Amino acid sequence: MEVRVFCPATIANLNCGFDVMGLCLENIGDEMIFRKTTTKGIQITKITGADLPYEVSKNVAGVAALAVIENRDIDFGIAIEIHKKIKAGSGIGSSSASAAGAVFGVNELLGKPFSKSELIEFAMKGEALASGSEHADNVAPCLLGGFTLVRGYHPLDVIKITSPEKIYAVVLHPHIEVKTVDARAVLEPSIPFHKAITQWGNLGGLIAGLYTQDYALISRSLQDVVVEPFRKHLIPHFEKVKNIAVQNGALGSGISGAGPSIFALCEGKKIAETVAEAMHTQYSKTRIPFDIYLSKINDKGVTLL
Amino acid sequence: MEVRVFCPATIANLNCGFDVMGLCLENIGDEMIFRKTTTKGIQITKITGADLPYEVSKNVAGVAALAVIENRDIDFGIAIEIHKKIKAGSGIGSSSASAAGAVFGVNELLGKPFSKSELIEFAMKGEALASGSEHADNVAPCLLGGFTLVRGYHPLDVIKITSPEKIYAVVLHPHIEVKTVDARAVLEPSIPFHKAITQWGNLGGLIAGLYTQDYALISRSLQDVVVEPFRKHLIPHFEKVKNIAVQNGALGSGISGAGPSIFALCEGKKIAETVAEAMHTQYSKTRIPFDIYLSKINDKGVTLL
Repeated sequence: MEVRVFCPATIANLNCGFDVMGLCLENIGDEMIFRKTTTKGIQITKITGADLPYEVSKNVAGVAALAVIENRDIDFGIAIEIHKKIKAGSGIGSSSASAAGAVFGVNELLGKPFSKSELIEFAMKGEALASGSEHADNVAPCLLGGFTLVRGYHPLDVIKITSPEKIYAVVLHPHIEVKTVDARAVLEPSIPFHKAITQWGNLGGLIAGLYTQDYALISRSLQDVVVEPFRKHLIPHFEKVKNIAVQNGALGSGISGAGPSIFALCEGKKIAETVAEAMHTQYSKTRIPFDIYLSKINDKGVTLL
Repeated sequence: MEVRVFCPATIANLNCGFDVMGLCLENIGDEMIFRKTTTKGIQITKITGADLPYEVSKNVAGVAALAVIENRDIDFGIAIEIHKKIKAGSGIGSSSASAAGAVFGVNELLGKPFSKSELIEFAMKGEALASGSEHADNVAPCLLGGFTLVRGYHPLDVIKITSPEKIYAVVLHPHIEVKTVDARAVLEPSIPFHKAITQWGNLGGLIAGLYTQDYALISRSLQDVVVEPFRKHLIPHFEKVKNIAVQNGALGSGISGAGPSIFALCEGKKIAETVAEAMHTQYSKTRIPFDIYLSKINDKGVTLL
């Protein structure tokens, strides 16, 4: 028995939703293959597209897969192939795609004992290997699709919001490395109260805009007064690209996850194409290599191929 | 020509929505009467139920009324009667009711040049006289009804959310004074980043719960890790009353505005009655006089009587 899984890329934070919001992309993602084996336990048998460890306990997908089978009596083993398409460190949920894909694929071979929502906590174990802490802001949208809000962690409480029909995302991935440790170091342990209020007003506006399909409200809400002012300096030409995106009609633009990818959300494919072209032209002027993606919001999340 | 206006009480903050969220109550509110006069300008001709200044520029309703007629060429004057039922300093929007009632009544006599949303900014001028700063978290729900989110102030951006059908509010008003200056002094200018994230996760959850009529989600979201831990000490027996409310089935409970009123939200009238009775019994054990109110959420806001 074999299942093939598409593990989509994701954008976390979305300006006003630091550590709580995320969305799922449609045509950017890894592929993973899961096969039942007679040897018990988890094995990673093939990895393409990235230089990742085959040792299960040191591999994000491996750790996530182990979390699903832990304490379960299973009379077969599982062999995993990982075909990475999402570059590590790009800021669009590369490790989360591996973690979410692993728990989804293993769950399929087990006969689906868990719902996608239940799988999030297992995927967080894999994510923790990559990021050092159990976060859900990428694994949640990767598993559930659409937009997701992580309301809280004690207990884990994730709300899925179906994307308004016309939202498209553009992602520009500059091929530079932003170390997670640096992205964290620029953030202070406290934030000014008035900025926190501005931020949660905007998050409330974003959630309201998503439910009412009010694109203008979504646009007004896509602001980040807390994290972007500090992190933008880590991403070369960030501000110029963001401004170009907004000037060309994007609803908003910001840092994808901890960067370095820069995202823009747009109303409709046509505007998204214009925005993508303008961002492409702008970044071509730098000497930094980059990729650019255009995607509808993926409402399904991780799926069988 | 005469119009009579009902000016409802409101609850601001709602635990996770400090400075941005509010809701409108149904059967608690002031009455105001507006009459056209031949003497131009605004006059306050009668005040009952409170010891407030008749001098227009020193009266919240007067200042708000003046803001509406400023720079307008009007060939009549307006006489205002104010019949206060909401006690000043109760924390359920007494000054906001006066400000919102004033702008609504004056707008009626002018032939409705402004929408209710447009009136919010004028009401904020009156509110500023009482609180020292232009806030909308009480005047917005008083004018629009339902739940309101103040996304931001530059420019003013208020989103109205119709209340889920079954939500009832219980308000306990202990007859003690919490000085605004004290309520502010206990708050620090910065807040821990992780608490801000918890708070905006909950605000996102509250907004999502309101749109999807998910009472359990609303309940899980009605938490305040930022303000309540500091302000609760200003309200005698707050924690006991809150716990009693929740133990008796309330979705959540917290400080109404800057206090001293304590509110609880409930799913359905029956639970609200049980909660009100339990809060009443609990507070009767103190020697502090109090009022208790039970109200459905008022979806209309300020209205003609």
